[in-house]
Amino acid sequence: MRTRTFTLAVLLASVAAQPLAAKEGMFTPEQLPEISDDLREAGLELDPEALSDLTGFPMGAVVSLGGCSASFVSPQGLVVTNHHCARGSVQYNSTAENNYLENGFLAKTMGAELPAAPGSRIYVTTAFSDVTQRVREGTEALTPNERYDTVEQRMKDITAECEEDAGYRCRVASYYGGAEYKLIKQLEVKDVRLVYAPADSIGKYGGDVDNWMWPRHTGDFSFYRAYVAPDGSSAEYAEENVPYAPDHHLKVSAAGLDDGDFVMVAGYPGSTSRYAMLAEVENTFGWQYPTFQTLLTDWIDTIETAAPEGSDARVKYESRLAGLNNYEKNLRGQIEGARRVGLIERRREREEALAAWIAADPARAGYRTAISDLSDLSQESATAARTSFWYGNATRAQLLGVAQRLYRLAKEREKPNAQRESGYQERDMAFFRQGLQALDRRYDASVDKAEWKLFLDGYLAQPQAERVAVFDEALGLTGVDDAKQIDAILDSYYANTSLDETETRLALMDASVADLEASNDPFMQLAIALYDYERGLENEGEERAGRALALRPAYMQAITQWQREQGQLPYPDANSTLRITFGNVMGGSPFDGMQYLPFTTLEGITQKDTGEDPFNAPERQLDLIEAQDYGSYELASIGSVPVNYLSDLDVTGGNSGSATLNAQGELVGLLFDGTFESVNSDWDFDPRTTRSIHVDSRYMLWVMEKVDGATNLIEEMDVVE
Amino acid sequence: MRTRTFTLAVLLASVAAQPLAAKEGMFTPEQLPEISDDLREAGLELDPEALSDLTGFPMGAVVSLGGCSASFVSPQGLVVTNHHCARGSVQYNSTAENNYLENGFLAKTMGAELPAAPGSRIYVTTAFSDVTQRVREGTEALTPNERYDTVEQRMKDITAECEEDAGYRCRVASYYGGAEYKLIKQLEVKDVRLVYAPADSIGKYGGDVDNWMWPRHTGDFSFYRAYVAPDGSSAEYAEENVPYAPDHHLKVSAAGLDDGDFVMVAGYPGSTSRYAMLAEVENTFGWQYPTFQTLLTDWIDTIETAAPEGSDARVKYESRLAGLNNYEKNLRGQIEGARRVGLIERRREREEALAAWIAADPARAGYRTAISDLSDLSQESATAARTSFWYGNATRAQLLGVAQRLYRLAKEREKPNAQRESGYQERDMAFFRQGLQALDRRYDASVDKAEWKLFLDGYLAQPQAERVAVFDEALGLTGVDDAKQIDAILDSYYANTSLDETETRLALMDASVADLEASNDPFMQLAIALYDYERGLENEGEERAGRALALRPAYMQAITQWQREQGQLPYPDANSTLRITFGNVMGGSPFDGMQYLPFTTLEGITQKDTGEDPFNAPERQLDLIEAQDYGSYELASIGSVPVNYLSDLDVTGGNSGSATLNAQGELVGLLFDGTFESVNSDWDFDPRTTRSIHVDSRYMLWVMEKVDGATNLIEEMDVVE
Repeated sequence: MRTRTFTLAVLLASVAAQPLAAKEGMFTPEQLPEISDDLREAGLELDPEALSDLTGFPMGAVVSLGGCSASFVSPQGLVVTNHHCARGSVQYNSTAENNYLENGFLAKTMGAELPAAPGSRIYVTTAFSDVTQRVREGTEALTPNERYDTVEQRMKDITAECEEDAGYRCRVASYYGGAEYKLIKQLEVKDVRLVYAPADSIGKYGGDVDNWMWPRHTGDFSFYRAYVAPDGSSAEYAEENVPYAPDHHLKVSAAGLDDGDFVMVAGYPGSTSRYAMLAEVENTFGWQYPTFQTLLTDWIDTIETAAPEGSDARVKYESRLAGLNNYEKNLRGQIEGARRVGLIERRREREEALAAWIAADPARAGYRTAISDLSDLSQESATAARTSFWYGNATRAQLLGVAQRLYRLAKEREKPNAQRESGYQERDMAFFRQGLQALDRRYDASVDKAEWKLFLDGYLAQPQAERVAVFDEALGLTGVDDAKQIDAILDSYYANTSLDETETRLALMDASVADLEASNDPFMQLAIALYDYERGLENEGEERAGRALALRPAYMQAITQWQREQGQLPYPDANSTLRITFGNVMGGSPFDGMQYLPFTTLEGITQKDTGEDPFNAPERQLDLIEAQDYGSYELASIGSVPVNYLSDLDVTGGNSGSATLNAQGELVGLLFDGTFESVNSDWDFDPRTTRSIHVDSRYMLWVMEKVDGATNLIEEMDVVE
Repeated sequence: MRTRTFTLAVLLASVAAQPLAAKEGMFTPEQLPEISDDLREAGLELDPEALSDLTGFPMGAVVSLGGCSASFVSPQGLVVTNHHCARGSVQYNSTAENNYLENGFLAKTMGAELPAAPGSRIYVTTAFSDVTQRVREGTEALTPNERYDTVEQRMKDITAECEEDAGYRCRVASYYGGAEYKLIKQLEVKDVRLVYAPADSIGKYGGDVDNWMWPRHTGDFSFYRAYVAPDGSSAEYAEENVPYAPDHHLKVSAAGLDDGDFVMVAGYPGSTSRYAMLAEVENTFGWQYPTFQTLLTDWIDTIETAAPEGSDARVKYESRLAGLNNYEKNLRGQIEGARRVGLIERRREREEALAAWIAADPARAGYRTAISDLSDLSQESATAARTSFWYGNATRAQLLGVAQRLYRLAKEREKPNAQRESGYQERDMAFFRQGLQALDRRYDASVDKAEWKLFLDGYLAQPQAERVAVFDEALGLTGVDDAKQIDAILDSYYANTSLDETETRLALMDASVADLEASNDPFMQLAIALYDYERGLENEGEERAGRALALRPAYMQAITQWQREQGQLPYPDANSTLRITFGNVMGGSPFDGMQYLPFTTLEGITQKDTGEDPFNAPERQLDLIEAQDYGSYELASIGSVPVNYLSDLDVTGGNSGSATLNAQGELVGLLFDGTFESVNSDWDFDPRTTRSIHVDSRYMLWVMEKVDGATNLIEEMDVVE
């Protein structure tokens, strides 16, 4: 396939009609004073300084659900987030008689609220401090592995100290490739209750078909409530618990927005790779993503064949299938996007320009070696990832994963808690146990076997250099080239394991290394056989990570200094910490000849509706639309109630559920997706095509008032015009 | 599936931003003086009266290719049409060494021009007259079958008289359901030569993926030249033939259009059903289209399995597959469109409103019975179509079709030529022979058998009432319910036929009824066994048609009178005669949240290009785009050369290749497609979503000048600024 890139002039020529360029930047709160002029120019009416206070208004109202974002919208701990972030809790509470997924759920009183799915959490940030000095001090002189271990140990120590305050969850986050470290302390609300979720036919309207797509008509919102012990401390679910009283909550705007209005989003974006080097980008887009996308397609086919529609197995794999389909579509979008913008070529140009900037001033010479070494390291990491790609897949069987985690746990438990690997410390055990329990609901032996077979076939097709001798030997693959022989091997694994029993798995959490080594469970034996090889891989990875810890801060310093000189304000890659992005309500031209309008309307729901899932809006809603019963939520410029809107904000996965705020800091909607042409923005923000998708607060209120009668919640919130 | 329709108010609310409504109407040239005010208001600068002269300028430059439209663009018979209309001729001339499909073809001199594919014709209209009186006189008193036969015989007689003038092709066309008849006399140019066709990678850019789609980037244009005998008369291909000198030809505009500009299209739209009654619409959209769409999907699968990619058989079926895929996509679009606009409900409302209008005035009482009878007849026809649907499919085997046509020919030949059924007269024999010859290039026994099997399976699954005893008996299906038995029957058909040999087929054109009845070819025996049954079906159809001939004119008179009173100008359904439609260059909002921009640009080609068919623009073209080498063809408002554009014109299949004219009657492009949301317009013109797609004359000239160096043609044409 030919690669071909636009020159910038051509790019600009094709967007001549575009009024504003989207604004790149997932800023940390402490950066906001630096961009206060930009914020005011974009339309912010609040004091920009106020935004940098994480525990003041409005940031103090913003919370994390771990993987999703959310915010308080009442003094009684009412939390609004995306439907897709709370849907697990709706599913958890659904039965054949009370199918809340199908019918929606509304607690008309607090007493009727239901416990959220196990493991549901609301994290309220209470403190934020810089710990760079303590983490990095003296690490430069160490060997790469020592450096890695030291940094990890210090992060664990700081976290442990912080968590001595019971009921809090702490985390040390790394910024700018290890140049900075911050400690974030959050109240861990463990008693989370489901308050209100519209039916799937509103909250998931359009389903997988519309996922990543515009035009969109999804009512992607739901409500939780945070509960704490009567004394205000974090507590597991208990009847005597009381609603948490947040220091701050957001007002909800019923006046809403119009095209071009200022919006900002505060949330917890997960991960971006905007500073990745050319070698990594080339490997990712030239090999890894296309290879994995093909594999994902086969993987989906394999599950669909092994778990036919309507089977019990399919129920267990619905969620995995949805995830794989989502991932496949995302990768496809990323690959297309990278081709469209000429990502690899742009990265090459950036590195050349950076090198020229460094060469232009002898004072910058110090950067040169660091960057050159980091580039080599990126290449080395890419090669390592490529070599272990098929081995990694060939060890994906779920029960093997369980065995590996259990054996690792036994090994780690031989060390003092503070020195154990992250994920195996006492603080992690609740989630560890829950993972072992949850397997039941997403495991079927015949499907797992079919998946493993698919991956093994791929592994066996690789050249000898990409095979792993210890794995071949332990699994008995040496000399095997016959599908029937593999089938026989796999059959014996599934026939002779007891790791498919929940009680067995949970009991083994307390087993010693010796206990496990005495086990004759084939998956456990395989896990033990692979243990040293895996630790070797891990150690090599840590060695590379240790080298990166010394090199990447220099690279980041160079590139951010260069960016500043070009008038850009650098910001760190997303790392699941609180970020703010701002911009405007804006349609856009995702590709030649086509324009996305900024708003969709109620009538678009009727247009799309087929009566069949996922386009099966409730009859009541369709009747209201036909009657043009807009209540007080009509947007004059579109002559209807706005359902979803687009903005040019810079967001990524993890931002889901984030409050979208207007110039006064009022909630005007929730971010829930990006357009298909935006998914590549994790690697390269393209102002022409990056658009995020929000559900409009007016649609939320309209559904609550007109369709679901959630008047109790409307009354509880501060709804402002 | 629930049906749900928009109220008009809701429809209008969602298009508040739309500047102009698309203009419905495929007007006959003689209607133009009636709408001259509208034409002038829309922007026409020519005298509207001039347009009604079919042999004057500009209409005299417009020709038919039979199935496509085209126009003269030089005094030396140069004809421009769509690439997809001339592609058969490019394919016909292509060899492995000279693959003109892949490389394009350009004759730099007239001597280098190549004969078009056999059967290619250019029809130049020379006279047009009303023959209503002669066709209809005294037919009202006849029985339905007599009426049908009389009308058919008179049409054949008029045609035959007209064709006494050698070299001309004549046709009597029916308008307004048989209320009017016109005789059209056309010079039949039989020596058609291929002059220039860009490569598929320009002319078919986007292929099936982009078919019916916007945004579009297809260079869908090619050039033929009409040749006649040195004395100017129609002649088969001969070296001494000379270019035909048309009375009129179009100037080609290099100045082009901008958003909102007046455009009109003159061409030969094939068929529409805008006046179809509710019963027919209900049957078509409630049953026939969905059923056939499902069958088409299976049919495509069957061919793809029986003729795997890369096989010789696949080559023979590529064109059929493309046609079936196109048809399937079209049906899907029609079904979706009908649902979206609530077609059935709208038809019901129209019939109710018409009935109310009739009831409002006792003078209109005469219409009531006619319409009620016609409605019953529509229901009867729908029932008949439904009953014979599966029988019709079960007799689709290509060799059975050949046998049926040959036996019918022998039967018809027993009558004097003038009384033979249309399609079996001497004037039809050249095309008949060609059809028998062409089978070779699109027939493979194993594929044909697989198709037949598919249809028979469908037929056998129907209730007894939809089975045809004579068919069951002749094919030996009585009591058969085992797939193997059917396989054995079909095997014996294909093993024992000789109709798969071209010479056999052609020789049988001269066979007598007795000869054929003595044949032991299984397909011929089956054809003979079905003959009487099929004539019975035909006779029943003719009886219904004869009744319709008496009823439909009254219905059409009522509905057109009613439309006139509502301020609409009625026009007859399309019938492959010359029509004019006018409107403006216009984007549109095909559905909520999305907007089609009116133009696409050169840069959009680069955006779409993957290097793989069908998105594999020539390297040279991509280089020119990257260099922004627009020549003199840039449109300032889009900052590039416009490739394709949208208009609100009212067109359908058969319009392909039509010249798009500007306000001065200059050629500003060629119509070649409609958007996916428009395909339903054959039944119900929806001004919100109906958009036609044109290739811009500036793109044509840019490709000719910059990419293909067709400067000889640019010089031959009158290119005006």
